[in-house]
Amino acid sequence: MFKRLIIAVLIYSFSFMPYNAEASLSEGSRKNVIFMIMDGTNSDVITLARHYKGKPLALDEILTGGVRTYSLRSAITDSAAAATAMATGHKTTVDFIGMVPVKENRGRPVANVLEAAKEKGLATGIIATAPIQHATPAAFSAHTNSRHQMKEIGFQQAHQNIDVMLGGGKKYAFIPDHISTKTEMMNSNGLRLHGFFSEEDIAYEFDRRKLHPEQPSLAEMTKKALQTLAQNPNGFFLFIEGSKVDFAGHKNDPVGMVSEVLAFDEAVKEALQFAIKDQNTLLIAVADHGNSGLTMGNRQTDQSYPETPPGHFTEPLKKASLTVTGAVSQLKRNKSNMKDVLESYGLDDLSQSQIERIKKAEDIEKAMVQLMAERAHLGFTTRGHSGEDVFLYSYGGKGVLHKPQGLINNTELPEYVIKHLGLSPLSELTKKRFVPARDYYVQMGYNTKIKADKNKQAIFTAEKNGKIIQYPANRNIRIVNGKKETLKGITVYNGKDFWIPKP
Amino acid sequence: MFKRLIIAVLIYSFSFMPYNAEASLSEGSRKNVIFMIMDGTNSDVITLARHYKGKPLALDEILTGGVRTYSLRSAITDSAAAATAMATGHKTTVDFIGMVPVKENRGRPVANVLEAAKEKGLATGIIATAPIQHATPAAFSAHTNSRHQMKEIGFQQAHQNIDVMLGGGKKYAFIPDHISTKTEMMNSNGLRLHGFFSEEDIAYEFDRRKLHPEQPSLAEMTKKALQTLAQNPNGFFLFIEGSKVDFAGHKNDPVGMVSEVLAFDEAVKEALQFAIKDQNTLLIAVADHGNSGLTMGNRQTDQSYPETPPGHFTEPLKKASLTVTGAVSQLKRNKSNMKDVLESYGLDDLSQSQIERIKKAEDIEKAMVQLMAERAHLGFTTRGHSGEDVFLYSYGGKGVLHKPQGLINNTELPEYVIKHLGLSPLSELTKKRFVPARDYYVQMGYNTKIKADKNKQAIFTAEKNGKIIQYPANRNIRIVNGKKETLKGITVYNGKDFWIPKP
Repeated sequence: MFKRLIIAVLIYSFSFMPYNAEASLSEGSRKNVIFMIMDGTNSDVITLARHYKGKPLALDEILTGGVRTYSLRSAITDSAAAATAMATGHKTTVDFIGMVPVKENRGRPVANVLEAAKEKGLATGIIATAPIQHATPAAFSAHTNSRHQMKEIGFQQAHQNIDVMLGGGKKYAFIPDHISTKTEMMNSNGLRLHGFFSEEDIAYEFDRRKLHPEQPSLAEMTKKALQTLAQNPNGFFLFIEGSKVDFAGHKNDPVGMVSEVLAFDEAVKEALQFAIKDQNTLLIAVADHGNSGLTMGNRQTDQSYPETPPGHFTEPLKKASLTVTGAVSQLKRNKSNMKDVLESYGLDDLSQSQIERIKKAEDIEKAMVQLMAERAHLGFTTRGHSGEDVFLYSYGGKGVLHKPQGLINNTELPEYVIKHLGLSPLSELTKKRFVPARDYYVQMGYNTKIKADKNKQAIFTAEKNGKIIQYPANRNIRIVNGKKETLKGITVYNGKDFWIPKP
Repeated sequence: MFKRLIIAVLIYSFSFMPYNAEASLSEGSRKNVIFMIMDGTNSDVITLARHYKGKPLALDEILTGGVRTYSLRSAITDSAAAATAMATGHKTTVDFIGMVPVKENRGRPVANVLEAAKEKGLATGIIATAPIQHATPAAFSAHTNSRHQMKEIGFQQAHQNIDVMLGGGKKYAFIPDHISTKTEMMNSNGLRLHGFFSEEDIAYEFDRRKLHPEQPSLAEMTKKALQTLAQNPNGFFLFIEGSKVDFAGHKNDPVGMVSEVLAFDEAVKEALQFAIKDQNTLLIAVADHGNSGLTMGNRQTDQSYPETPPGHFTEPLKKASLTVTGAVSQLKRNKSNMKDVLESYGLDDLSQSQIERIKKAEDIEKAMVQLMAERAHLGFTTRGHSGEDVFLYSYGGKGVLHKPQGLINNTELPEYVIKHLGLSPLSELTKKRFVPARDYYVQMGYNTKIKADKNKQAIFTAEKNGKIIQYPANRNIRIVNGKKETLKGITVYNGKDFWIPKP
């Protein structure tokens, strides 16, 4: 009921905006996809975040089913394998980015939905609060044996001709003319937008507001990306990750987890408003896996659980103005401000001896989150991921014929993108864009070799009758007899074999 | 894809059954509802059960959304409040059965969907593997201040004119001519069927097969109930609970939890086949809340989680042929067969000193489940319930116009039942069936009093000019000047006030 009401109200209110009237006319049947992932988010943290907010979430409007998350060889996936499944349709193994395992546990690249969208001339974008080279956004834009090859991933992304890239990871971003503050982002108005707002990841939303206001929020990046991409006459594919529910999950920090679910939800709100207005945009939002086994309820509530008002869980969290990471980032070397740090995390009533004990703790963050979990009656089972089915969210207006719903496997998601955007099958694109270089040139009578250059970048060389063709790894160029040529895709090297776009 | 295929295949295969052809003709637009609850089941245990089975579940075919479960005053509900919400549309407080709190924390009865179905002349049924008087089935068939008033609940149920009652709880069942074995159940062929197969609860499915084959499974009870109820020309409302996922959850016994999810799923399969064949049956299946915080993944997998094949979780469980309850039920008083008991729970490789330690444990079951959880890499956060949103499942064929989907509150579910069956609003039925007795008779000039009879059963008496009208509590009769009259509903007493069907 509520869902329909809200959507009706949004359609109604937009229908009076003059811009929309124009847009409807000019946009016609232009199709878009917004694909959102909240990394490492189980049902419990979404429920907790809703209680914290005290109001329904944007996500609540568009729940349509569930997703099976296991990876090729594990009942519990890592983010690399999960995102590879959702970007390429292939289950794969731990650490692999846009690759499936072949012999010697090296990867073979498989095309992703962003590449397919680009192939058809759509605009593309990726956004993350982690470094943009981090596993999840990487699987939508790169192909490496290991998620830890951050530089290779950054290099590939820089050669993928992606229109919008916003997030953290300045350190590994090989795009020279990018912006790096929220103000610059807000003032930009081109068709392309590349912004990296932190060397590593963007601050947790609660910390960003207090400590790093120069960084944009996920919702602000989302809004700006949509404005930018919507100018493209051929439609767009935009990938967005709320990366840091997972980071906070690994730390068992419920404050950080709530911070990031709410930040993600604000971005969903922006995306949903756009999709409702547009009616031709398929919006998918999904968790890639659970993390931490957070529950409302723990050993303390074994008996008392039926009499625990929401405030028993949320009030202790609300006392915190910073996440545990943000709070501890303010700790002086001599720990003289320990009391203030604890207070900023909501631990405002500790005795001097308790404070001293935390000062001496081997892992101060761990000591703090354990205290918080106790106060908030929250349970955790692990500092790793968990294996359960997660919620699936999707929305499509009248121009969207198929949206994912029911229980699906994560590998089914790319099909919905392909179908909605009318793209070629990924298997075809894989054949066209990732040709085994040696086989290809050997068949044509070339001699081939792979060698690292002076920057330790690998180069594939094919030689025949004095003609020398060179392909540097992780780029979209080749050099034919010393002359540079641009390729339609990127080159990939797995440490043994080399793949190139079909010449 | 898979879902549609299966459903198509089922429709197709049924369409060639001669019985169905007749049924379609004669049943016409007769509407039915099957309302199934798996008590205390989070997403993780469903995923684990699927891995254990190695094949998709019937539930997987019909996932449509999620349910918010919190109760009136608690973020974590008990089963009484959860079932009251789903049966009556009212959030209520811990322990209340079909009642909402008024002053002094006593309850006021509110009508439920089974009563509304009965009111319209539909056949009705309730099934549970717990005692049929247990909180969840109770909320669909009774009204008491406390779920612990098992006898009052049993008494009310016996006076509710329910066509089919199958489950445990012989001890509190006040229906004289009932059956009590699976064979008797299978051979019955009347329009009414009352079977209680255990003094308390029916054995866990794994234990039932080995130790109590004379008890029917949940799927067998479901199938028989559907055969029985489908003979009613006016359609039916059938409530089914897989009660004991929750029991096993409270014990943190993953073997028991998997046993009961799979048993519930077999019952869903029966119900789904019926609904697909019938096309006018709305099938709802839902968890009432989470329990135990089970996760695939625990502290041992903090680092190794991305490389844990499903067998790491399921193989230790598969070694068990009995649940922890079933295994320990076989322990001799002198514990001489401890080794065999442990083996039947899959703990088949313990050293003599380990076995001795378990023998001496204060809580043997607890020692056993902890060992199992470790071996199976499973985490638990609590021995109580948890507060997260749970999965919602529903199916309706072409004769079903509205089925629940998306994120809903548990209080929204009765509306779908009412709508599909074309029943009167529950608020109207509450006014008609639960009239405050004292107010009613005082207004008409009667003197009234409430007194316990010699069996400690309360009796409401109204007297005027020598006319004496008596209403015994928890029954569907009144005595007017010594003459018994049958009422259209039951009488309810909350320890202070008395409600009666409108005379």
